[in-house]
Amino acid sequence: MFKQFNEAGIHFYASRNNLSTKRGNVFYNPMMIVNRDFSVAIINALTTLNNKRMRILDLMAASGVRALRFSKSCVFEELVVNDVSKECVSVIKRNFKLNKIKNKRIKFCNESANNLLLRSSTFDYIQVDPFENIHKFLDLSLRKLKNNGILALTTTDTASLSGTYPKTCLRRYSSLPFKYDFKHEFGIRILVKDLQRLASKQDSFLEPLLCYHYKHHYGLFLRKVHSKRRANESFKNHKYLIYCKKCLNARITNSIFNSEKCPVCGSKLDFFGRFYTGSLWDRRVLSLMLENFKSKEAEFSRESFKLLSLIYEESSVETPYTINTHLIAKKYSLKPCSVNLLVESLKKDGFKASRTHFNNYSIRTNASVADIVRIMKEC
Amino acid sequence: MFKQFNEAGIHFYASRNNLSTKRGNVFYNPMMIVNRDFSVAIINALTTLNNKRMRILDLMAASGVRALRFSKSCVFEELVVNDVSKECVSVIKRNFKLNKIKNKRIKFCNESANNLLLRSSTFDYIQVDPFENIHKFLDLSLRKLKNNGILALTTTDTASLSGTYPKTCLRRYSSLPFKYDFKHEFGIRILVKDLQRLASKQDSFLEPLLCYHYKHHYGLFLRKVHSKRRANESFKNHKYLIYCKKCLNARITNSIFNSEKCPVCGSKLDFFGRFYTGSLWDRRVLSLMLENFKSKEAEFSRESFKLLSLIYEESSVETPYTINTHLIAKKYSLKPCSVNLLVESLKKDGFKASRTHFNNYSIRTNASVADIVRIMKEC
Repeated sequence: MFKQFNEAGIHFYASRNNLSTKRGNVFYNPMMIVNRDFSVAIINALTTLNNKRMRILDLMAASGVRALRFSKSCVFEELVVNDVSKECVSVIKRNFKLNKIKNKRIKFCNESANNLLLRSSTFDYIQVDPFENIHKFLDLSLRKLKNNGILALTTTDTASLSGTYPKTCLRRYSSLPFKYDFKHEFGIRILVKDLQRLASKQDSFLEPLLCYHYKHHYGLFLRKVHSKRRANESFKNHKYLIYCKKCLNARITNSIFNSEKCPVCGSKLDFFGRFYTGSLWDRRVLSLMLENFKSKEAEFSRESFKLLSLIYEESSVETPYTINTHLIAKKYSLKPCSVNLLVESLKKDGFKASRTHFNNYSIRTNASVADIVRIMKEC
Repeated sequence: MFKQFNEAGIHFYASRNNLSTKRGNVFYNPMMIVNRDFSVAIINALTTLNNKRMRILDLMAASGVRALRFSKSCVFEELVVNDVSKECVSVIKRNFKLNKIKNKRIKFCNESANNLLLRSSTFDYIQVDPFENIHKFLDLSLRKLKNNGILALTTTDTASLSGTYPKTCLRRYSSLPFKYDFKHEFGIRILVKDLQRLASKQDSFLEPLLCYHYKHHYGLFLRKVHSKRRANESFKNHKYLIYCKKCLNARITNSIFNSEKCPVCGSKLDFFGRFYTGSLWDRRVLSLMLENFKSKEAEFSRESFKLLSLIYEESSVETPYTINTHLIAKKYSLKPCSVNLLVESLKKDGFKASRTHFNNYSIRTNASVADIVRIMKEC
C-alpha cells in the first residue's frame, strides 16, 4: 500500500497510488516540489528578514513531506503538522522517525482543519493545500494569522479562475474571468482580489509576496497586515479589464463610465474582473529567497530556481498583464520574433520589458500594442 | 444588578443596565421587540408552510428573551439556546424556570458561537445577533444551515451601510454605499449582495424572505437554497446604481459601459454599489406572518403589525429603490403633497405605487421622476 519516495534528499512514505485523492489515501504530488521549495525558501527569507523564528502550521500535511522539509531546512519557534486523516498522521509520524527527526518544537495533530484553527492561538505561517474548495478554510485561517503572518495557499482550481468555467469563477470568486491571452495571470489576480476582500472584512490587508502559476496549480504567499487603512486602500487596486479582442489593446479602469468602443480600432469592447492590479511580488523577499536557493543548492530543485529567477526578472515591470507575441504576430500578420530579442529592443527604446513565467511567448511591458508592433516589424 | 422585564406577556431578568454591551452584562434591548415578533411569526409561518418542525439555534441568546418567546409561541423539533457568557446562560436558565418552561426539546449551551457551530449538526433556523462585526460568524452559520434553512440576522452597522462611513462600508461589504435619498434600503441591499456572494462560495443562494429597517437596526430573514444554478443567477441581480443628484433620476446597470452624463438633465453622474436589485420580500411568507399576527394578537406588539402590514403593501412594487416626495418637491419647486394622495394618483394613472416603511415621505413606484413631478403638479 505504501511506497518510499525521495524529495530534496528526504526519504518518506506515501500511498503507492500517491496521486489518488481518495479518502484514507496518503497523497503525494511530486510536481508540487516547486511549491514546497518556495515555502522552505520563503520561511528562511522571512526568518532572516524579521530576525524572528516563526510559529508554523501545515494544515493539511498529507504525507508530511513539506513538514519534513521545514524540519530539515528551516529554524522555527514551533511547527504544527496536522491532517484530518488518521492514516496520514500515522504515516507522518513514521516518516519523521524514518528521518530521525526528534524536535520538541514539532507537534502532530489529527483534527479537521477548522477545528484545529478554532482552538489554536495565532501563527506566523499557515500552509493551506486543500483538495476541495479553498473557501471552507480561509476565514479561520486568516483570523488565526498574526500581524505580518503568511498565508501560503495552493489551488488547482485553475480552470475556473482562467475562464474555462466562467459561471463557477463568478460564483466562487465574484469576478468575470478572462479566457484570452493572459488568462492565468488574470486568474491569480482574481483570486488575490477575492482573498483581499475577505481579509478586509477582518480589517486586514493581504500583501502578495510571491504568486505564480506552475503546471496544474497556482501558488500564493501573502502577508497579512492588520491595518484598516491598507484594507481600505486595497480596493483602489481592484479594477476592471477592458479588452479589445480585435486589436489586443488592454485598459484597466475603476469606473463604470467607459466607452464601449475601442479607442484604437473602434471595435466593440468586452470587460472582465474585477481583478487585483497591484504587484504580485515583493522583490526584497524574492531576492532573499534566491540567495537561499544559491546557498543551499542541494535542498532545492533546479526547476524551482529557474522559475523563481524568471519571476524575479518579470517583477521589475509593473504592468498587471502580459502580451503574447505570437498573438500579436498573428493579428498583425507579422513574423514572430524571439522574445529575448523583443525584450532587448523594447528596453533599448526606453520601455520596461521582461519575459514572463506565465508564458514562454509573452512579454511583460509598459509599451503599447502599437509600439510592440512597430518594434516587431524592425526585428 | 438584575431587573425584571416584560415582553409579549413574558417576565424575565436582564441586567439593570440592560443596554450596556459590557462583558458579563446581560443585554436586553426592548426596541428589538419588532425583530423578535418577526422571528416568532416567521418560524410559525414556515412551520405551517413546510408542515415540518424546525431545528432552531439562537446563537447569541443574551437574556434568552427570544428563546423564551419561541418556547411560548412556536412548535419546534429542537431549540438550542447559546451564549458565550456564563452569566448570560445562568440568567437564561433562571428565566426559563421563572416562566415554568420545561421542555426536553430545549438545550442550553455556553460556548463561543463558532465553537458551537463547528461541532453542531445542521439547523433549519439560525438567529445571529452579534454586537460586533457580523462577518466573524457568517461563514460557519451559513455552512450549518440545512437546505431551505433560515439565516436570521440583525445588524446595527447601519451607519457604514447607509453611507456615513463609506470606507468602512467598502472594507466590510465590498460596495460603495449611497448616502442620499434611499440610503437605508440601499444599505440593506448592499448587505444582501454581500451575504449572497458569501453563500455562492458555498454553492448556495440566499433568498430574502423579509428585510427591513427599524430605528437603529436592519433585520434580515434569508432562506438558504443549496443550488449552484441559483447562486450563479444571483449575480445578475448585483448591479450598480447610477444616480443624478441634480434631477434625482436613478438607473441600474450591470455594465461598465455607461455614459457619465445624465440622459435627462445632462449633469455629471455618480455611481454606487454593487447592490442587490431583486425582491427583499416573499409575499406568501409575509401574508402567513400577518395571519399569525392577527390570530395571536396578544403575543405580538401593535408596532410590529403596523410595520409588517406596510412592508406587505410595498412588496407589491418591484422597483429596488424609493423616491422621496419632499426631495422632489424641493428640487422641482413644488408644494409637497400627501404621500397617500400621490400613491392613489399614480395608481389611477396606471403606475404601480405604494408607501414604504423606509421613509414616511417616500414612495415606491415604477413611475419616472418626470411622471411623479407631473402628477404632483396636479395634486
